[in-house]
Amino acid sequence: MRYAILGSGAVGGLYGSMLARAGHEVHFLLHSDLEHVAKHGIRVDSVLGDFVVPSPNIYRDASDMPPCDVAIVALKSTNNQLLARMLPHVVSDRGAVLSLQNGLDVESASADAVPGRGVLGGCCFLCSNKVGPGHIRHLDYGRIVFGVYQRSGESSGGQSGEDSAVTRSAYELGQRILADMTGSGIDAQWTDDLAAARWRKLMWNIPFNGLSVALDAATDEIMASAAAKSLAGTLIDEVHRGAACCGVSIDAAAIEATMQHTETMVPYDSSMRLDFLHGRAMEVDAIFGSPLRAVERARAARGETVENSSHPMPSVAMLHQQLQFLDSRSGKASNPTH
Amino acid sequence: MRYAILGSGAVGGLYGSMLARAGHEVHFLLHSDLEHVAKHGIRVDSVLGDFVVPSPNIYRDASDMPPCDVAIVALKSTNNQLLARMLPHVVSDRGAVLSLQNGLDVESASADAVPGRGVLGGCCFLCSNKVGPGHIRHLDYGRIVFGVYQRSGESSGGQSGEDSAVTRSAYELGQRILADMTGSGIDAQWTDDLAAARWRKLMWNIPFNGLSVALDAATDEIMASAAAKSLAGTLIDEVHRGAACCGVSIDAAAIEATMQHTETMVPYDSSMRLDFLHGRAMEVDAIFGSPLRAVERARAARGETVENSSHPMPSVAMLHQQLQFLDSRSGKASNPTH
Repeated sequence: MRYAILGSGAVGGLYGSMLARAGHEVHFLLHSDLEHVAKHGIRVDSVLGDFVVPSPNIYRDASDMPPCDVAIVALKSTNNQLLARMLPHVVSDRGAVLSLQNGLDVESASADAVPGRGVLGGCCFLCSNKVGPGHIRHLDYGRIVFGVYQRSGESSGGQSGEDSAVTRSAYELGQRILADMTGSGIDAQWTDDLAAARWRKLMWNIPFNGLSVALDAATDEIMASAAAKSLAGTLIDEVHRGAACCGVSIDAAAIEATMQHTETMVPYDSSMRLDFLHGRAMEVDAIFGSPLRAVERARAARGETVENSSHPMPSVAMLHQQLQFLDSRSGKASNPTH
Repeated sequence: MRYAILGSGAVGGLYGSMLARAGHEVHFLLHSDLEHVAKHGIRVDSVLGDFVVPSPNIYRDASDMPPCDVAIVALKSTNNQLLARMLPHVVSDRGAVLSLQNGLDVESASADAVPGRGVLGGCCFLCSNKVGPGHIRHLDYGRIVFGVYQRSGESSGGQSGEDSAVTRSAYELGQRILADMTGSGIDAQWTDDLAAARWRKLMWNIPFNGLSVALDAATDEIMASAAAKSLAGTLIDEVHRGAACCGVSIDAAAIEATMQHTETMVPYDSSMRLDFLHGRAMEVDAIFGSPLRAVERARAARGETVENSSHPMPSVAMLHQQLQFLDSRSGKASNPTH
């Protein structure tokens, strides 16, 4: 299995390096870090043990990369417009895409870029930051939960024969990825219900990415304040209700578990907060806009209106607007050159 | 009529100086500005014309002030615990208190401090800041709408004979204050429905004080952003619904008028934003906590619960929690020495 890593940051850099360390063939797309990594390799400081990948296969341009069995998409979703150009070069004819991005329905850009190829999506439950060029610091947790992506509204029963074959192929590749990852020391788990995993992850991302920016606070500050913690709880409840509204059932115990995990987590600056503090574009649309639209579509499909039913995620909608304001004001670089 | 001004800042300093300029007897309580004002007087830079009160009557301690017919309370409501000590000194036997503080039910601390004396409340619709010691800058608008305060649940029909006499006396003093203010160039208006005026003012304070802190933005930045403006609109709607829930009917045209006034307002840092930027305590409880409690009482009185009815102010409740977090974190001085 040959892997391409698109976006060699906190997530792609970590998992790609773990696969490379285990002897798998991994090709990394880099941009600003290329010269540094060419000299020094990729350095991973991890709770699971520190290591360096001394001479990784690195590229500045996706068109120079070889066709791979698996392209792991770990760019920020604000750069997804780049995938239409990149993915056709790096995904082999029988290959697949594994998107490890935050948010809901982020896989659609990959599916559009390489029609006829399988698309998988994964949620990463970890605390990891890129702290310097080619330098990843993995602080806590590390699980990937991944599965086959199907577009909203698609179910395997309603697929054409060709689509079914693609889904089967994605499933088979997924099992091989799972074996490779597990063998590389990655805490990877398969799911037959990617939508549930996505919503489950949003139960953390929406409150804690959102409030960490809106309140300018790390997770430990939020959990130490009765008011902010209560607000986080409200948001988690709402995301749970939003999932149900979209037909995704999540065990109610996940509500309390999300708070518990965050209580015991290392003090952590979410990716969104780091983006905000550095004036970079935030993943507001993938993490907030997309689930809010999914809820609106589900409500509209059932004929629910403002008049005849209450919105399941009013606080999420409010936080979304606050983040849109803050995102539009920051001096972000929304169009990087790679 | 002899006036005492407790809190000689953006509001008390402005209106007290306008009364003094017109020849009324006015006594100002000052703290940190006392030496400066003793030398230079009070300076008012106003859209209505600049002037100086060269030698005002000034005091460091309320117990040195003479008994007055009217004590104008223009302290920040976060200092209301000081009123129990101050007001008995400055309100004459037949005098009254006029509270010009922001928020809902802020008059209760004054009513507790001088039982048997009349209490009036007023809402100020103006853009004014204290920009230096004894130096007020009045930027825009200037209206005071004031009337007799009655505790929540009290109506004149249910009052005892003594209370009715106090209310009548407050009304009569109010008419004299109105005449004095109008004659001093102050845009003062009488209202027989103070509660409606308070809620009407909250329709501005809640969205624009709150968002100016939560989004770290002046009013013009909020109005220039589609997301932030939409959020302000949601909050205004909710305050209008909250008032209705408390039995206070406000013309729906006020919703649009509030947005219009803010559109055409000078770019303005609200008092709450200035407090936040300077690390001072914010009036979170008076402006957010108190109306939210009023709504809860009204809902409880009607037997409404989370299950059988939706909260009329969910976004207000969320903003309240955000502000509580931000207020608790700032290095505020919650107990000034005067």
